[in-house]
This record gives sequence, structure tokens and C-alpha cells, in this order.
Amino acid sequence: MTSAPEPSSIPDSQATNGLSELKRLLNQVSDLDAAAGLMSWDQETQMPPDAARVRGLQMATLAGLSHELFTAPQVGALLQAAEAGADETISETDAALLRVTRRDHAKATRLPTEFVEEQSQAASEAHHAWIAARENNDFASFAPHLEKMIDLARRYADHQGFEDHPYDALIDDYEPGMKAAQVRGIFADLRDRTLPLLRRIVAAGDAADYSVLSRYFPAQAQREFGLKIAQEAFGLLPDFSRLDESAHPFQTNFSRDDIRVTTRFDETYFPMSLFGTWHETGHAMYEHGVAARLERTPLSRGASLGVHESQSRMFENLLGRSRPFWQRHFGAFAQAAPEVARGQDAESLYRAVNRVRPDLIRVEADEVTYNFHIMLRFELELALLEGSLSVAELPEAWNARMQEFLGVTPPDDAQGVLQDIHWSSGLIGYFPTYTLGNLLSVQLLGAAKRDPAIAAEVDRAEYGKLREWLVQNVHQYGRSRTPTEITVAATGGLLSADAYVKYLEDKYGDIYGLS
Amino acid sequence: MTSAPEPSSIPDSQATNGLSELKRLLNQVSDLDAAAGLMSWDQETQMPPDAARVRGLQMATLAGLSHELFTAPQVGALLQAAEAGADETISETDAALLRVTRRDHAKATRLPTEFVEEQSQAASEAHHAWIAARENNDFASFAPHLEKMIDLARRYADHQGFEDHPYDALIDDYEPGMKAAQVRGIFADLRDRTLPLLRRIVAAGDAADYSVLSRYFPAQAQREFGLKIAQEAFGLLPDFSRLDESAHPFQTNFSRDDIRVTTRFDETYFPMSLFGTWHETGHAMYEHGVAARLERTPLSRGASLGVHESQSRMFENLLGRSRPFWQRHFGAFAQAAPEVARGQDAESLYRAVNRVRPDLIRVEADEVTYNFHIMLRFELELALLEGSLSVAELPEAWNARMQEFLGVTPPDDAQGVLQDIHWSSGLIGYFPTYTLGNLLSVQLLGAAKRDPAIAAEVDRAEYGKLREWLVQNVHQYGRSRTPTEITVAATGGLLSADAYVKYLEDKYGDIYGLS
Repeated sequence: MTSAPEPSSIPDSQATNGLSELKRLLNQVSDLDAAAGLMSWDQETQMPPDAARVRGLQMATLAGLSHELFTAPQVGALLQAAEAGADETISETDAALLRVTRRDHAKATRLPTEFVEEQSQAASEAHHAWIAARENNDFASFAPHLEKMIDLARRYADHQGFEDHPYDALIDDYEPGMKAAQVRGIFADLRDRTLPLLRRIVAAGDAADYSVLSRYFPAQAQREFGLKIAQEAFGLLPDFSRLDESAHPFQTNFSRDDIRVTTRFDETYFPMSLFGTWHETGHAMYEHGVAARLERTPLSRGASLGVHESQSRMFENLLGRSRPFWQRHFGAFAQAAPEVARGQDAESLYRAVNRVRPDLIRVEADEVTYNFHIMLRFELELALLEGSLSVAELPEAWNARMQEFLGVTPPDDAQGVLQDIHWSSGLIGYFPTYTLGNLLSVQLLGAAKRDPAIAAEVDRAEYGKLREWLVQNVHQYGRSRTPTEITVAATGGLLSADAYVKYLEDKYGDIYGLS
Repeated sequence: MTSAPEPSSIPDSQATNGLSELKRLLNQVSDLDAAAGLMSWDQETQMPPDAARVRGLQMATLAGLSHELFTAPQVGALLQAAEAGADETISETDAALLRVTRRDHAKATRLPTEFVEEQSQAASEAHHAWIAARENNDFASFAPHLEKMIDLARRYADHQGFEDHPYDALIDDYEPGMKAAQVRGIFADLRDRTLPLLRRIVAAGDAADYSVLSRYFPAQAQREFGLKIAQEAFGLLPDFSRLDESAHPFQTNFSRDDIRVTTRFDETYFPMSLFGTWHETGHAMYEHGVAARLERTPLSRGASLGVHESQSRMFENLLGRSRPFWQRHFGAFAQAAPEVARGQDAESLYRAVNRVRPDLIRVEADEVTYNFHIMLRFELELALLEGSLSVAELPEAWNARMQEFLGVTPPDDAQGVLQDIHWSSGLIGYFPTYTLGNLLSVQLLGAAKRDPAIAAEVDRAEYGKLREWLVQNVHQYGRSRTPTEITVAATGGLLSADAYVKYLEDKYGDIYGLS
């Protein structure tokens, strides 16, 4: 409100080519999106139960205005002028801003309005149909909606254009620059090298008394311990964040200084809230680490879903499920949950929270089996898009692969093909980013630990220097660098399954005595 | 998201004159304002402490976009076309929509952009200066800012235009159609008839043991009891509302189905939270009672601040501070606060919460002295605007009137002329609406009680029929009727001090034994 220059805006390196005006418009779009984000967070965590109808209309208006503002001819003209005026004096950040804005603008303007409306309406109907189908274990009632979503995905890819595979146009929304062929290669390697490991783990039998995981741990005490660790060990800053409860855990934020994390509680299965909180804390640390100068621009978010997931998985699994972590924090855990900790020690708890068990549900899967859930979905998505698999054949194909990968068969579709929300919302091409994130998390931590000071700290469950390294090498760039640029610069190589496979072999070889 | 017609929109009685398109734009403005409202509520109740800077920028963007959308040439053109096309077939609601939209549009477009920016910046600076001045008891440091706000108020009135007095253009923003001359007349009558009453009350001495008001009552228990009464006695619906804590209590809402009430707690002065909660509940009931068909239009709010205050004061004072209320709820109170209730009964508590005491601070004033705080401010605002009083002379004038009306003199300006936020925010012409609301509350309750069934219920502290009457006669209209239309239709006469004076004489004559 004062006349002081706004400290968070990107300094304008090209005063003459309308970049300032473009940034002003992009700030407005970002602010509208922040408001929509707040409405969504509020809906999940605070809103009175019967307020949903009007809230839905309000959120639709905000989304529409944001789209209208961003695709207005003025933005295109300013962008074009700024691109034309850009020369070697342009700052790296401004150049990235033009590149990312051009990318987003092209994607937004390539879609005819009628297509966007058709897609939005179909997704809304499919989502409702999915909820009912899962409740009634009735895949047939969802099938026509899924067919429609597949059809829309194909047409979406056609609108956006692609070289090799329509899937490339889909995954690019979540993982810029990633191609189906690359994913296929990485996943094949991962599958071939971890399936034997999984079989050996299963054959080895139990490595701990897992009943400790279902001992009673009151929700409020879970909340306090989870948040204490998130803040004191992982660095979630109370002045910039808050933790709430929601049906499905998520992280959202309305600026790097206003981060909302949610979790959910099961009083007889504490890992759900603890690792859920620390997972979302990883996302939160990423968003808070984005450079302040990118605030309120298209650059002020994580580089991709995969890079985002690398941060959440690092905090949840590589740190939160590590032996040094439990050695350091077992005392605090025992104080927070004396009944759970009775007769336990750091090692037994470490082993318990690292139980490997092939099972039906993705979101509850461990580090070893999780990626098979993803590879299964990726293969099915490709087959559906290519037309080599029909929607009618999908449940059978799902169950066959579950048997092949994990040796289990869902007793019904609700616990099988209907378990995830994604396809009902039109999110096709999204699943692989979970596994890409898993792989990247290990690759990044390995790179960071090449610094002996970081390695020494992490080995005693201290993360201050690691956080600095992550801000320096990943967080600060936001979307101003691509996932590949970040990966190569930070780790010295492209993303691969190597580090992850070695991590699994070492960790679970040790736990399950496979040497 | 579905194609079903939106149920809350005003049915279009004039398909041919662009009214539908106008309504669509007004819906968008309303949705933007709802988002800004949520951002503001969130800031006061939920937001992490260090997120204020970016939130301020985001809220400014939303306010700017809303203003831009509403003042766009398209809205003016659609409005003009709709007005030209309106004939005798237009519905009453559509006619009101055009009338109120024209009024708002004219006010919004009469102000030059530079003036709005100057005002906004000056208010921001004045607000910060006021906070410091109040903290340091340093009126002189605030004086130049107040001079600026007075100057801006004069110029605002000039932009808007007025017939008799610039104050008319100011108060009209808060109390449409009200004039300074009318307020002057009503206030003079009120003053002349209640000042003698106040003197007699003061002379009569204590009517109860007031130390009960400062007995310890834990915040959580206050919250539960206050909310229980708000819901069970006053009708606040849990599915449409929530109660939070904030530094200053307020009610806001983002639709009639999404109402947020706040309160604050003092564990050794329970009336603050209880009557605060019930006050805001009155505002909430009003907003929830506005007809659903007015949703997302400029009509979907209370008719004026005065009418709004009539509802909050009715629940807080006329009902919540009534003898039947305490007779009915003393048991529940004693259960919630056994330590406070020890040795008390309904009558002693009724008398305690109706203590009359001339004192310094408006927001803590009782029913008898409250209006003197308002009359004082009204007189000073007039004098400042007219130039017959300078800002430098203001503290002395304040203190002189405090002595004249209430027989007390502030020991410092922080507890005197600097106590309220309003002037620092440019809210000049706002204060009278508090007293107009007080007067109207009694006039409305009297009118409702002409129905013997309502009177019988209210006399045993049941409010179901009264609420129906309020929805029928006040709430449902939103802004589609003016405050005067509502007052005359509901009570049979114009607003006056008569009913209020009689109410005070009866109630406090009884409590203080003045017969």
C-alpha cells in the first residue's frame, strides 16, 4: 500500500519492451490463482459442510477469470514484444520467465474453449461416477466415463501436438520435457532390477514385530509429535506454515511465506499421519525455498511433479524412515507415545516402519513395492491410449499385472482398478511422476552426500546443511530451470534407476538379512 | 460444473435486454469479493504470522480486479440497456437489482482513479500512524494523517455530490438515504431524553455485585457455552457457519451458506466473549436470512450497517441481556461456569450483565451510555468536516464532551480520541449507524411482539417465531429494499428514539429501582 518498490518482483532488465507490464499481468494471474488455492484449502479444511454449492461456483469464476486474463490478446502481444526485445542483456531469470510463460501460454491457447468446457464437464461427471462406482464396487458404471476421459486425453494430445507418442503431450504437463519412451526405459530397468529383490524380501519373512504399528496412539499426540519433528528436524517454519487435518493429505501454498500442510489420523496406525505429515513437509520445504524474486510469477512453483515428489519422498522415506533418524528420535517418540514404544527400541521401530509387504493399495505401499503400482498404471495408460487395451478389458489387465508384479489379486475392483481418483479427474500421464520422484530423491541425496559435511550430518539425522544444499541446487530455481537441467546440474547425470536400486538393495538387504 | 441451471441466480424477467449478461458479470464481481473476503477472514484467523506482505498484495489485486470488472464500460452499457428495456413486466427483484447496481456503479465511477489511489495510500499510512500514536499516546503524530483523512472525506463528498451537507454523501455509503439533518434530530431527541435517565441511574448506585463478571471462566468453556446458546437459542446453523477467535470480533460470509463468526476471550471478563459471540450471531442470522435468489448479486447483503446492527444488538442486548433469557439459561450457565455461578441466581446475573457505568471506552459501554459515545463522535465529525473544529482542537473537544455526557475525562488520548480505528481508515460517517441500529433493534422487536404468539415466546426466551418474523420482514430482502422501506413496512413508522427511550426507562428503571 505504500509507494516503496515491491521487493518480491523480478527486477526488470528490459524497461523498454513491455516486460514490466507483462509481469504486472502475471502477478494478477498468480494472485487470482492464490485466491482459488485458498478457497480450495478452506473447502478441504475449514468450510462449513453445507457451503459447497456456492463455493463451487465461486471457484469456477476464479478459474475462468484467471484463464481469461492469462489468455487475453494483451498477454500474447506483450509476450511477443518482450521476446522480440530480448537480447544478451536480459537476465537469466527474465529469460526463464519468458520461456515458461510462452510454454504455459501456448498450452492454454491451443485448446478451443469448447474443448476445455467439454473436458471440465466430463471430468466432473466422471468424478461423481467414480465415487459411486468405488462405493458400489461397480466398474461397469464407471467404464463409459473412463472411455470418455481416454478419448479426451487423446484429443488433448492432438490439440497440444506431439512427435512420437500422444502420451508425451500428457506427461509434459506434469513433467516438462519427459517422454513416454524415456519413462519406459527407466521403468523397465527398475522393474528388472527390483522384482528379484522383492521376491527375495518376501521369501525372507518378517524382519520385526509389526503389531507395534497398530498400537493405540491418540490423534492429538500424533499431531504434536509429527509437527514437532517437521519443525525441529525438517525445518518447517511455524511463522510461514500451518498443519490441518483433511480427508486426503496435501500441501498447498499461496506464497512461499504462506504454506499449508494437511494430514489425517488413524489412532491404530500411526505411520499414516507421521509419514504423511513429513511427506507434505518435503513439498512445503520446496515451495518455501523458491527464490523470493520469483514470487507471484509463473516461475514461483516447483519445477515438476517429479522434482516435487523427490523432496517429499526424501523427507518421508530417505530421512524419516532411516536408521539414524529413529536412533536420534526414538526417545522423543517414546515420550509422545509411551504405550506404543513399550518394549521397543530404535532398531525395532526402524524395522517396523520399513515393513515390505506386497499389497493392493498404492498409497499404503512401501518403498520397494510402491513403484510396481506405478509401473502397472503407466503400462495400462499407454495401452488404453494406443487402443491396444479396451476399457472393458481394464480390470482383468489390472488384476493380471498385480499378480505378476506383486503376487496378489484384488478381491474386488474397489481395491483394484477403482482405487485412485486420478483417471476420474482426467489426470492421465500423472502417475509416472511419483516413481520419477522416488528415483530422483535418492539420486539427489546421494549427490548432496558427496559433501562429507552433509553426509556426516545426515548420518546423525541432522539436516541443516542438506536443506541448504537443496535450496541451493533445487528449490531456489522454481520453474526457472527444467527438471532435467536441475537433475544434471545437481547430480551430474540424467535421471536413472541406478541410485534407487542400490539404495533398496543396501537398505532392505540389511533389514531382511539378504547378504 | 454440470449443465443444470444454476439454482441461485435471479430468474431473468427481461430476456431481450442483456440482463442475463449483466447478472453474469455481477456474479463474477460477487465471487471475486467473496474470495477477497475469504483472504481477509483467513488473515485474521488462520494465516501464518509472516505471510502478511504477499497477502496484502494479493488482496489489493482482487480488490482492483473487482473494481475494474464492475466499472468496465460493458457493465455501464448493459445496465443502461437493461434500464431502457425495463417495463411494467420487470420483476420487483430485477427492478431492485437495476436500482442498486446503478447506485453502486455511479458511486464507483464518480471517483477518479487517482483519487482512489490517493485515498487508499493515505488510509494505509494513517492506519499505521494511528497504531503507533495509540501505543505511544501521541495524538500529535497522528494529527496530520487525520487532517488528510478529513480533507479526503470532503473531496470524496464533492465527487459524489450532495444537497445539504457533505456528511450526507459520507453516511449514505453506510446508511443509504440517511441525511445528517435526520441523524441530528434523532440524536438530539435521544440525548435530551436519556441523559436525565443516566444521571438518575448513576445516582442510584450499584444494583448488583459486579465482581461476578471478573470471576475466572476458562476460554474453552466460554467458547462452548457461547456457541451452544448461539446455535440452540439463537439459531446459528452449524452446517452453514463456524466460530473462530480473532483480535477483534467480526462476522463475514462468502455466501448465505458460508458464514464465519469470530470472538475473543478474556478469562476474567466473560461478557466480552459471550455477548460478542451473540452480537456477531445476530449479524450472521441476517446474512443467512437473505433470500437465496439474491445470491452472488449486489443485493445479497444486509440493507445497511444500521439495519445490520439492529440484528446484532437485538440478539446481544434485547434478548441476550434480558431477564427471561437469564431465567431460562442460568442453569446451563451454571453448568458451564460453576465457579462463576456460585452464590448467584438468574436475577443477580441478569443485573450484573446490565451494569450501567459511564466510562471511557465505546466498545465496552452498556446500553445506556453507549449512544453518548456515538453522539460525541457524530458531533465532532460534523464540526471537523465543516471546519468549525480543527484537528488540533479535537482532543480537548473530545474530553469536554466526555465530561459533559458521561462525567468522565480520559487520562490520556489513547483512552480518548485515539481509541477507535475508524477515522484512521477513512471511515467518517460510519459511527452513527451503531446508534441507529440500537434504536431500530428496539423498534423492530416491539413491532414483532405485537404478534401475541411472538411476544409469548420471547417472554420465555424462545426465538423461533421471532426469527421467522425477522426473515420475513427484514432479512429476506437483502439490499432490495432500502432501510427506510424496511423500517416503515416492518414497524409502521420511521426510525425514531421513542421505542429505545421507553425500553431504557422500563428496563433500567426496574433494575435500579427508579420508579
